[in-house]
Amino acid sequence: MHQHPRSIKNLIDQFTRLPGIGPKTAERLVFYLLKQDKSRIDSFSDALKTLNNQVTRCSICHNFAEKDPCYICSDPKRDSGLICIVAKPQDLLVIEKTNEFNGLYHVLGGLIDPLEGITPDLLTVRHLVDRIKKDAVNEVILALNSNMAGETTTLYLTKLLKQFTVAVSRLAQGLPIGSDLEYADEITVSSALKGRRQL
Amino acid sequence: MHQHPRSIKNLIDQFTRLPGIGPKTAERLVFYLLKQDKSRIDSFSDALKTLNNQVTRCSICHNFAEKDPCYICSDPKRDSGLICIVAKPQDLLVIEKTNEFNGLYHVLGGLIDPLEGITPDLLTVRHLVDRIKKDAVNEVILALNSNMAGETTTLYLTKLLKQFTVAVSRLAQGLPIGSDLEYADEITVSSALKGRRQL
Repeated sequence: MHQHPRSIKNLIDQFTRLPGIGPKTAERLVFYLLKQDKSRIDSFSDALKTLNNQVTRCSICHNFAEKDPCYICSDPKRDSGLICIVAKPQDLLVIEKTNEFNGLYHVLGGLIDPLEGITPDLLTVRHLVDRIKKDAVNEVILALNSNMAGETTTLYLTKLLKQFTVAVSRLAQGLPIGSDLEYADEITVSSALKGRRQL
Repeated sequence: MHQHPRSIKNLIDQFTRLPGIGPKTAERLVFYLLKQDKSRIDSFSDALKTLNNQVTRCSICHNFAEKDPCYICSDPKRDSGLICIVAKPQDLLVIEKTNEFNGLYHVLGGLIDPLEGITPDLLTVRHLVDRIKKDAVNEVILALNSNMAGETTTLYLTKLLKQFTVAVSRLAQGLPIGSDLEYADEITVSSALKGRRQL
């Protein structure tokens, strides 16, 4: 029996199943935990349990939330006529942190990527259409990645939303603030040129 | 409130407190878990709890174990006159995996490292001496790292154990099997020269 005690091995296995964590790293994490206070491991365990028990999906925007509707969708001070569409909850937070957006969100749950088998029906697209039909939505902002899947999704949604009387815009593409023109790639510079603003 | 729901944030914090895991990686891990089956998160949580409840230290060799004495120390088929000294439980497993060792172990709990403030009294050295005094130990093998702290500890224990009628040896130092002489560092080659074996 050349292995760790069963309970140690079991936790190593759990860590190993996480993305980017190999068996050696998992072993190191478990032995690190074993050196900590027992209460530390308890709170880790409890945090996982709580995640399971308290996190749900908001039935309006599909963001993770602890109540349904989530705190954003149920906030009367936010503009319900404006919806920002993001791929995933982490992206939503990036927009929130700007303090510049006072509308609601719609989390797609991914990006359209035919090569990966991700088609619109696997995302919350149908529900987005229902929202636009039902609620008085004036404007939709597409805040998607600037890569192939993001472009595909932007294109698809732009076409799809043409049938409604709703303004559709996307995040500006150009030079990141503080970046050096000398080191910018040509596609970014080309986007920045096309999107140049009159001063 | 530009942050994740409390239970998500709480679990991200727990992951961030692990060594080598930053806030971004922690966030990625938690959102990965959120996409999995609830049962998956439950078993992770349970694995942590079980670790707390079932893992103890063997009072003889100081290895982590689920019973005391551990399965190695309580195995009558193993040679109790031979003790292999290792720094930590992971090292013990490396020796076990060779299938070449049939004695018992002693886990020091670290290596002597004055610069880091790790002195012999912080390790299980005193208890090792008690074992050697009390049990009929014939031979001790020092299986410690080939670095500064390992050398310091090897030197210290060699001197300390001189007072007992016990043979003290250390793991051979030399070229790793399958390695290329051309790329070996000079200190390893020098050790390999000194430890050359008559054929």
